[in-house]
Amino acid sequence: METQNRHNLPEIIAILTRTPSALDALLRGLPDIWVCRNEGEGTWSAFDIVGHLAFAERTDWMPRVRMTLESSEARSFEPFDRFAQLKASQDRSFEQLLDDFAHLRKENLAALDALNLQPEDLARKGRHPAFGSVTLSELLSTWAVHDLTHLHQLSRVMAHQYRDTVGPWSAYLGVLQCHGHSS
Amino acid sequence: METQNRHNLPEIIAILTRTPSALDALLRGLPDIWVCRNEGEGTWSAFDIVGHLAFAERTDWMPRVRMTLESSEARSFEPFDRFAQLKASQDRSFEQLLDDFAHLRKENLAALDALNLQPEDLARKGRHPAFGSVTLSELLSTWAVHDLTHLHQLSRVMAHQYRDTVGPWSAYLGVLQCHGHSS
Repeated sequence: METQNRHNLPEIIAILTRTPSALDALLRGLPDIWVCRNEGEGTWSAFDIVGHLAFAERTDWMPRVRMTLESSEARSFEPFDRFAQLKASQDRSFEQLLDDFAHLRKENLAALDALNLQPEDLARKGRHPAFGSVTLSELLSTWAVHDLTHLHQLSRVMAHQYRDTVGPWSAYLGVLQCHGHSS
Repeated sequence: METQNRHNLPEIIAILTRTPSALDALLRGLPDIWVCRNEGEGTWSAFDIVGHLAFAERTDWMPRVRMTLESSEARSFEPFDRFAQLKASQDRSFEQLLDDFAHLRKENLAALDALNLQPEDLARKGRHPAFGSVTLSELLSTWAVHDLTHLHQLSRVMAHQYRDTVGPWSAYLGVLQCHGHSS
């Protein structure tokens, strides 16, 4: 398939490099209404989202990259615990989570760079616990789009806090028509 | 109404202050795939979105704030041309648009600060061309949520470029289930 062999690593790294500083610029020092509130029971706040991103850096992306390169499809990736950050973040401040995310991402990008991936490596395959065979290209692309999906969620969670405050303009503000799409 | 008299200006200014640097950190220097591509005919790229934000700073928000304070509901706001930036941006580079937005936003926040708004001012009313009476509180809140709605759109437009590249992970990435909500 075209996407498996396209050498799009610089595009992916361009996103991965920028997300921590973008979130820092957007979020550090914000009033609690924007950081601590969610969209209702069982949903995530900005605090939870940044905790999730930091947790994924620690446990998910690079271990999966390494498994793809080392053992191919012999063993499935560890399932990704999408709620683990709720426990892992409980003793951290929001500013510490932003620092954690930036620090872990920087380390991971250095480790990725050290792998010196070649175009042919991007077609290497791993095994996802839910949907089976996946390529390294798909994994790395997902890492970048995962950043974007949480930026999308974050803007929606923040806007939700002003759903009533904007009055009749709510009809014109697309983010207020978004009701979440994550599975 | 509660929201009209709540003195939430610091919350609003906290968002408005951060958006330009967040977009700069996210977007400056990105490869063209993330900056120039849209979601199909008649839709916006990151370039168009930043142009729109800059154009709105120039023509929309502060003139409307001043009308609310000066003439109350005697005269409707000028309708907001949501496509004007497509012409206004055509001779600017993406980096210039990011600079324009940051510069104009900074000027507008200084002008807003100089108005020294008091809680009672937030209940002052203006007339929107489409939905009539609105308060200054609603207008200022909308300014902040308008930033968030375009951050939401931006993350979706960027993710769209990798819709196929992520392979089966597309099912797990909420941003790829979002099909736009702007009227």
